Amino acid sequence: MRKQIILPYEDRVTQWYNVLPDIPNGLLPPLDPENNQPIAPEKLGAIFPPGLLEQEMSPERWIDIPEEVQEIFAIWRPSPLVRATFLEKALGTKAKIYFKHEGVSPSGSHKTNSSVPQAYYNKQAGIKNLATETGAGQWGSALSFATQKFGLSCMVYMVKVSFDQKPYRKAMMHAFGAEVVASPSNLTPTGQAILAKDPESPGSLGIAISEALEHAVSHDSTNYALGSVLNHVCLHQTIIGLEAKKQMAMAGDYPDVVIGCCGGGSNFAGIANPWLPDKLEGRNIRLLGVEPASCPSMSKGVLAYDFGDLSKRTPMMQMYTLGHDFIPPGIHAGGLRYHGMSPIVSALYREKLIEVQALHQLECFEAGILFAKTEGIIPAPETCHAIRAAIIEATRDLNDPKTILFNLSGHGLLDLASYEQYHAGELSNYEYPAEAIAEATRHLPKV
Amino acid sequence: MRKQIILPYEDRVTQWYNVLPDIPNGLLPPLDPENNQPIAPEKLGAIFPPGLLEQEMSPERWIDIPEEVQEIFAIWRPSPLVRATFLEKALGTKAKIYFKHEGVSPSGSHKTNSSVPQAYYNKQAGIKNLATETGAGQWGSALSFATQKFGLSCMVYMVKVSFDQKPYRKAMMHAFGAEVVASPSNLTPTGQAILAKDPESPGSLGIAISEALEHAVSHDSTNYALGSVLNHVCLHQTIIGLEAKKQMAMAGDYPDVVIGCCGGGSNFAGIANPWLPDKLEGRNIRLLGVEPASCPSMSKGVLAYDFGDLSKRTPMMQMYTLGHDFIPPGIHAGGLRYHGMSPIVSALYREKLIEVQALHQLECFEAGILFAKTEGIIPAPETCHAIRAAIIEATRDLNDPKTILFNLSGHGLLDLASYEQYHAGELSNYEYPAEAIAEATRHLPKV
Repeated sequence: MRKQIILPYEDRVTQWYNVLPDIPNGLLPPLDPENNQPIAPEKLGAIFPPGLLEQEMSPERWIDIPEEVQEIFAIWRPSPLVRATFLEKALGTKAKIYFKHEGVSPSGSHKTNSSVPQAYYNKQAGIKNLATETGAGQWGSALSFATQKFGLSCMVYMVKVSFDQKPYRKAMMHAFGAEVVASPSNLTPTGQAILAKDPESPGSLGIAISEALEHAVSHDSTNYALGSVLNHVCLHQTIIGLEAKKQMAMAGDYPDVVIGCCGGGSNFAGIANPWLPDKLEGRNIRLLGVEPASCPSMSKGVLAYDFGDLSKRTPMMQMYTLGHDFIPPGIHAGGLRYHGMSPIVSALYREKLIEVQALHQLECFEAGILFAKTEGIIPAPETCHAIRAAIIEATRDLNDPKTILFNLSGHGLLDLASYEQYHAGELSNYEYPAEAIAEATRHLPKV
Repeated sequence: MRKQIILPYEDRVTQWYNVLPDIPNGLLPPLDPENNQPIAPEKLGAIFPPGLLEQEMSPERWIDIPEEVQEIFAIWRPSPLVRATFLEKALGTKAKIYFKHEGVSPSGSHKTNSSVPQAYYNKQAGIKNLATETGAGQWGSALSFATQKFGLSCMVYMVKVSFDQKPYRKAMMHAFGAEVVASPSNLTPTGQAILAKDPESPGSLGIAISEALEHAVSHDSTNYALGSVLNHVCLHQTIIGLEAKKQMAMAGDYPDVVIGCCGGGSNFAGIANPWLPDKLEGRNIRLLGVEPASCPSMSKGVLAYDFGDLSKRTPMMQMYTLGHDFIPPGIHAGGLRYHGMSPIVSALYREKLIEVQALHQLECFEAGILFAKTEGIIPAPETCHAIRAAIIEATRDLNDPKTILFNLSGHGLLDLASYEQYHAGELSNYEYPAEAIAEATRHLPKV
């Protein structure tokens, strides 16, 4: 009979897994765009606290989760592992489909796994305020929750089009005590310049990142926080996969394939990286990242040194990228609309340790609806990509049923407007033309 | 250190507790308005299946939960019991505050505890479609989920003002496969008559109930379903308190006071009734229902035979009531805007076995915000009433700390618009004038 697989509190995960020492050929260092040399840690120290910088380049395989962070994690962790028996039945498959339910967090997604330690290490460093950007609103919500737990203030630059279209996300950030402004704003030089040119600018993640960075460096005791891409964010998310490993063992199963959707890469790294040591030791396990066909960083992008943001304020990192000035179409999985892929996930793909699949949004929404009806959880549009991939794996060969694990990275309760558009037939697929990607990446130094 | 108290699946609750045989002096029978005599079961059989009618008047103390219902419950049950250590700390109290988290269900509230068995017993009876009404949308969502699990269709008449103001609730019902129409609609005689008089009518729960009833009796193989008030709904909700009793025992605690908010009464009955046998045996435990001051059925109403709906289509039941034509002000806890109180809860109040407290919405939203910040869960506006009451109990006498249990009946993620209005200072309190209540109940036969 069906049941959730609950990891006893006493068996909780108390250390993160750092994949850096296990990546064959390692990562290339981030470069300072001013001199094309590896960036000096002091420069990053202007916006990040020592605790996070240390994690960003740590050679240690295991890193302790601070007690105070564990205490807050206990609000929703260990998160449930569930065998999707109702979905399996609806598919008529003998495959076993497990999912790790990260939608149970205060902000409704995996993002809180990193916002809490980020707030903690900033608090440790004596910082009083954090500034960040948010697109769809998941990261802004997660940081809003985490900052007030440590008595920090939080300033969120929210992409204007989302600010207007997602009032519930804004309301959630307010409920958690954060200040939220539409970006472009008149609070920063970048925002002012853009508004002067176009008072009706809808904004972009690139603009919002620039504003948050400018806010951080121009305010006392204020740091910047990023919700994906960076090594320390991927590190924090490994608690997902580490718990899942213990829970799969409780269930007496081991996955043939582990699946996560890929935007900046942190939720995929979180569910997948902890299985990598097994794979390196020869275990037969596939790690599958799922991208939107409209923003196919790994499947169609190039491996290059590129900026993390549109306005070239970040260090250059080696990653699969569509070019930092690539503007993905406005699909509803906002969390997957990012031009690049985290250096860690990029390196794993470079080393052929992970696979990538690109899917269209309509087939993903269809999978999300089936999941909601069968399993009772309405998934985030991002998560629908992982669900569709799991369904593909579960039905590929009915005579060779596999054991599948995917990360349910977040619920879609604040994304219901996009489901309504899907039902109304207002959404369409979009495949980004290869020429446009070639053009956007033409000038990048390939590596 | 903090942790959730998880009831092992093997210790799950497999029987509901029926309070009927334990109510001193019992319930008076529902009356047929046509002749003022106890209503003939056949009449109710036109809209309810035998399985539910049997439960409505069963003398059995324990009733088995069908296997198929347990199987679906396992998606989210046993639900967590949590000790709200962060809230306790913020309050500076030594009181222990526990809450039962019913927000983890597919529709986000306790309503699914009854929608699943209701769909099940209708399916057993060969019924193919259910019709219902919904105000704020919680019940409509819950029934939408449950019906499709059993292959039934679902038709929801949603009060027009909510239909327009709560697009996310509508989208959730669509995602679960239900059909939703704004009420008044042109699909029923009642709706047509009202639209003919006032094409812009905002609708009301009373109108929507009438439409759903008319829909059920005028369509083949179609029954009606109600989300609160009735005995069988209160029965289904006892799984909340029964699990909580086991979990409190796991925690080594016993509550001095058990708290639930009161609209129609089913979530309060669910958390409170299972403790009643202890109380009847002399155990010192208080059971506290919390009403909105704007709709104080028990604290300001009269005990009388009254109709369940505005248009007098239901049998008359003995209950505390503000009068069936009482229109409560539009506070944001839509689930608490009901003129009457379930016969079971009314009888317990009549027998002085439960207490009642009426609270204003502003103090309740304030409590909800504190809860969100400390415990990481944004509660439904209805639930905020229970939270405020728990805070009052926890801080009443700091030298005499109590053990408190309240029901977190639902999350507020689809109610974030009302939080935003609270933050903007757009909400106000409202105390319903005693004269208006006296007028609305003047003509009722007191009992």
